[in-house]
Amino acid sequence: MSSISLGSLMHTSSATRLKADRERRRMGTHNLAGRRVLVLGGMGFIGSNLAIRLVSLGARVTIVDSMLPRYGGNLMNIEPVKDRVDINFSDIRDIYSLEYLVKGAQYIFSVAGQTGHLLSMTDPFTDLDVNCRAQLSILECCRKYNREVTIVNASTRQVYGKPFYLPVNEDHPLVPTDVNGINKIASEHYYTLYSKLYGIRCISLRLTNTYGPRQQLRGNEQGFTGIFIRNALTGNRIDIFGDGTQKRDFNYIDDVVDSFILAAENTELESHIYNLGSAKLYTLLDFVNLLHGICPLEYRLIPFPPDHAAIDIGDFQADYSKFSTETGWSPKTNLAEGLAHTVEYFRPRIQGYL
Amino acid sequence: MSSISLGSLMHTSSATRLKADRERRRMGTHNLAGRRVLVLGGMGFIGSNLAIRLVSLGARVTIVDSMLPRYGGNLMNIEPVKDRVDINFSDIRDIYSLEYLVKGAQYIFSVAGQTGHLLSMTDPFTDLDVNCRAQLSILECCRKYNREVTIVNASTRQVYGKPFYLPVNEDHPLVPTDVNGINKIASEHYYTLYSKLYGIRCISLRLTNTYGPRQQLRGNEQGFTGIFIRNALTGNRIDIFGDGTQKRDFNYIDDVVDSFILAAENTELESHIYNLGSAKLYTLLDFVNLLHGICPLEYRLIPFPPDHAAIDIGDFQADYSKFSTETGWSPKTNLAEGLAHTVEYFRPRIQGYL
Repeated sequence: MSSISLGSLMHTSSATRLKADRERRRMGTHNLAGRRVLVLGGMGFIGSNLAIRLVSLGARVTIVDSMLPRYGGNLMNIEPVKDRVDINFSDIRDIYSLEYLVKGAQYIFSVAGQTGHLLSMTDPFTDLDVNCRAQLSILECCRKYNREVTIVNASTRQVYGKPFYLPVNEDHPLVPTDVNGINKIASEHYYTLYSKLYGIRCISLRLTNTYGPRQQLRGNEQGFTGIFIRNALTGNRIDIFGDGTQKRDFNYIDDVVDSFILAAENTELESHIYNLGSAKLYTLLDFVNLLHGICPLEYRLIPFPPDHAAIDIGDFQADYSKFSTETGWSPKTNLAEGLAHTVEYFRPRIQGYL
Repeated sequence: MSSISLGSLMHTSSATRLKADRERRRMGTHNLAGRRVLVLGGMGFIGSNLAIRLVSLGARVTIVDSMLPRYGGNLMNIEPVKDRVDINFSDIRDIYSLEYLVKGAQYIFSVAGQTGHLLSMTDPFTDLDVNCRAQLSILECCRKYNREVTIVNASTRQVYGKPFYLPVNEDHPLVPTDVNGINKIASEHYYTLYSKLYGIRCISLRLTNTYGPRQQLRGNEQGFTGIFIRNALTGNRIDIFGDGTQKRDFNYIDDVVDSFILAAENTELESHIYNLGSAKLYTLLDFVNLLHGICPLEYRLIPFPPDHAAIDIGDFQADYSKFSTETGWSPKTNLAEGLAHTVEYFRPRIQGYL
């Protein structure tokens, strides 16, 4: 019942990769230098920050973005590297352009996605299309044309739902409270399955609350950090739902970019799915007070609207020790520093993000 | 952080339902008698057998079926009740006809689906459309127009993948070996989520190897029981992959129909997801030998083809004690009896099933 032929194929492919990896290390070159890298969703928050880092590492970057309204894509995001990347406007739901694009890519960062929890309840089909169907398309294209590629997929702590215990490790039950969490579970499974069956190296990282320069500030659908930062910068009052004591483990974008690079480069990872997170917990009130210290603001506490209450997950902290142990990753930027960088980035550019 | 308004809504709805249920029991009437019931996939194997039983219980049955080739729909299946059911040919992926159909239904049996494991690997997008997107459509229609409905959803033991231990209970990790298993996980989550958030009563039953009259015999994509029975009846040699010692817990269709009826009627179920299964395990060789006793046949053992080997799950037995404890259900038909009924049904009708 063992899969002999597929198994030996995977073994060879993995052995070749390890050898190449060792050689690169001996020669002192960076794995990603000179490599062809596809950043799906490269105009968005995570994608643009990744693209900028990748360019600085010497990678040959192609950005793919659909520029769907309300999904975070913004041409301003890639201003520092716009002449040093290839840009391809297309939707990852379009399998024909995708087939062409994946050919020849050595790394794919799959960070195009719908991340709004409430939006996934009011428009579950777009969430399904982007977070399931398109991810399956990426994998099908790689299965057909490029099994040697490495893919790092952005997943989310939303797969866990309301935690049974803290910190939440990767073995915590998955009881998602919204359609977004469900579809991200499916996408993680696709990546893991295609990795096991076809030898495509795939790693999914479960992100917690990520914030920082280039995040989406527009709209009220992509999480509270963007809304709070926007309101602080535009002089609008911040509404905190509940009593503000809900705890979160915030990750600054540069730390998250580090994790993607490490996941891509490290060919000896033991698993397919890893938590990110932060050792330090902050309440929403902490977040607002730190922000207030940088950019004076006004806030009030209001009751949870029913639609938010229904899908709220309460306190959250991820256990990221598995990823930390295997790669040496840990978040380096504390919330006060991260918010200072964020405000510094957005203040002169705020009009382009409204 | 608790969802007060939604919570109290659900509570009222659930209390009303329990009261109505108690009254029906006191009056000695069967819950499903006179009820408007929608059977999605009603021309298929599970659906047609359900429809026949529902008619005998006095339910007002509407069958919905897309008649997709290769998916098991067959007009012959509903021959005994064809003048006593409404038939609506439409695809559950068509949300507009679905919206109309769900209005006024008191029970929905969602048994339309793609069940082929290998087919889900060669055509993952159709599997996604039918097993995820269409299920989400059903739920969205009910959320908008009919939250009082009860839905029983057919899931599969394929969600577990290759078992870590036997018998597999509902807490066993979900490590699917194919796209079908992944998409069924997502659909179970959708049903559970909509149940919790919107008070639509949803139960998913995880089926093991179900066989019996009206099962699909055509093609080689929907499981080995159909292929073996077809080959036996048509005098073609049966190919068993591997050494034939793989064990399965077979369920005869009448027992599975019982479980759907019980799940629909029992308003006091504690969970949203239940295993079906059988206390008795049989090897594939046992299955073939029992079949041989009823319908002489020829077989051979051949090595697993690589595509099958890659997604094979080895031995499987489900622990169905949770469902059994709560509803009193247990399978009544042993494999020898079940196969005898199956051959008796198919023998005079075989041409219509090839």
